[in-house]
Amino acid sequence: MRPFVFVNVAMSADGKISTRERRQVRISGREDYLRVDRIKAESDAIMVGIGTVLADNPSLTVKSPELRKMRAEAGKDEDPIRIVVDSSGRTPCDADILRKGTGKRIIAVSGRAPPARVRELKRHTSVIVAGESDVDLAEVLRVLYERDGVRRLMVEGGGTLIASMLSSGLVDELQTFIGAMVIGGEDAPTPADGPGFLHEPDFVRLRLIDIERIDGGALLRWQVEHQEAA
Amino acid sequence: MRPFVFVNVAMSADGKISTRERRQVRISGREDYLRVDRIKAESDAIMVGIGTVLADNPSLTVKSPELRKMRAEAGKDEDPIRIVVDSSGRTPCDADILRKGTGKRIIAVSGRAPPARVRELKRHTSVIVAGESDVDLAEVLRVLYERDGVRRLMVEGGGTLIASMLSSGLVDELQTFIGAMVIGGEDAPTPADGPGFLHEPDFVRLRLIDIERIDGGALLRWQVEHQEAA
Repeated sequence: MRPFVFVNVAMSADGKISTRERRQVRISGREDYLRVDRIKAESDAIMVGIGTVLADNPSLTVKSPELRKMRAEAGKDEDPIRIVVDSSGRTPCDADILRKGTGKRIIAVSGRAPPARVRELKRHTSVIVAGESDVDLAEVLRVLYERDGVRRLMVEGGGTLIASMLSSGLVDELQTFIGAMVIGGEDAPTPADGPGFLHEPDFVRLRLIDIERIDGGALLRWQVEHQEAA
Repeated sequence: MRPFVFVNVAMSADGKISTRERRQVRISGREDYLRVDRIKAESDAIMVGIGTVLADNPSLTVKSPELRKMRAEAGKDEDPIRIVVDSSGRTPCDADILRKGTGKRIIAVSGRAPPARVRELKRHTSVIVAGESDVDLAEVLRVLYERDGVRRLMVEGGGTLIASMLSSGLVDELQTFIGAMVIGGEDAPTPADGPGFLHEPDFVRLRLIDIERIDGGALLRWQVEHQEAA
């Protein structure tokens, strides 16, 4: 048993999520900003990779006061549970994700994280140890489902985490906003980095659910087609 | 004066045009295959980079007998002029682009191409020398326009050539077919590779002309917004 998992990502028309220097680019506009805030508020938890925390230092809080109020009135924390996937425990203790907003934060580390670092993180937040050298994502999702009651999980990136989630078969839906710009760069991050797939049966197959024009670009929603277990 | 230039590219939902091993992937289907054959037949010339020639060995011929006949009846060669951008003159003399189909082929090299290699290529095809270390793309387009009467040029890739054409301000339209699959891979080629853009005023700005659902994916047509000369 695991939560429904959807990935939300904004990319340029040539498939980049930032520049090769990992500098954040304003790919979308106001309409998409409001949409993302809404789908964040509708989620029980939101997950990012450590690369994104180190590059962008996002707080991942819900921004709209109305949405925060709605969550509170429904008996929830104003922000969803915020999770960092961080195999070697590199999350800075003063990261905005730990400092800002309300509600639970979880750092998911692997056995590779130095014990002293894990102890330090535990003084600031909740820590899950899962997996030996890489975080065991399926195990994290199981804990989130069973222990924390997470039923709807949003993955905000970056490309390495999204690729791991996809190749582990843990993603149900992919929402890609495609912005009206070209960023370019063979070394620029993309929505699915990591080693990638090489051959025909390994590619992740999708089904296009919906297309919408927003912010001068296009929002594509894809359902991930899960392969039958062999 | 230069031809109208449009780029046609098929990418996965995560912005990859092939695997990290540059292995060709069937991203689109029959509908897009027919569309690409048609827009090829409607073009006066079609251009690719040497990386694509070495990886895929495409012939770039028009496939449909009807479209070939239409071209012939209009007094044209059955295939558009086929151009390889190949700074150091690495095109194999037995490449399919030189062996297959009808009509003119042009290899555009730079001053960096070894003279012996240029002489050898000239025995098999037409060669343009333009630029010192890299091919001067604006000069090539000028020659194509003035000498060969090319008014409509299709750029078929790969990501390095497309990035160079875009950053030189030589592209008018970008057609991206987005297929229902994830290829992944931080080293997999994308629609615009090269060094990429780093800062706000340098990004290429687009205007979304049209979205169409085909082959289970989406065809996005973008107009490139040319910046005013400073």
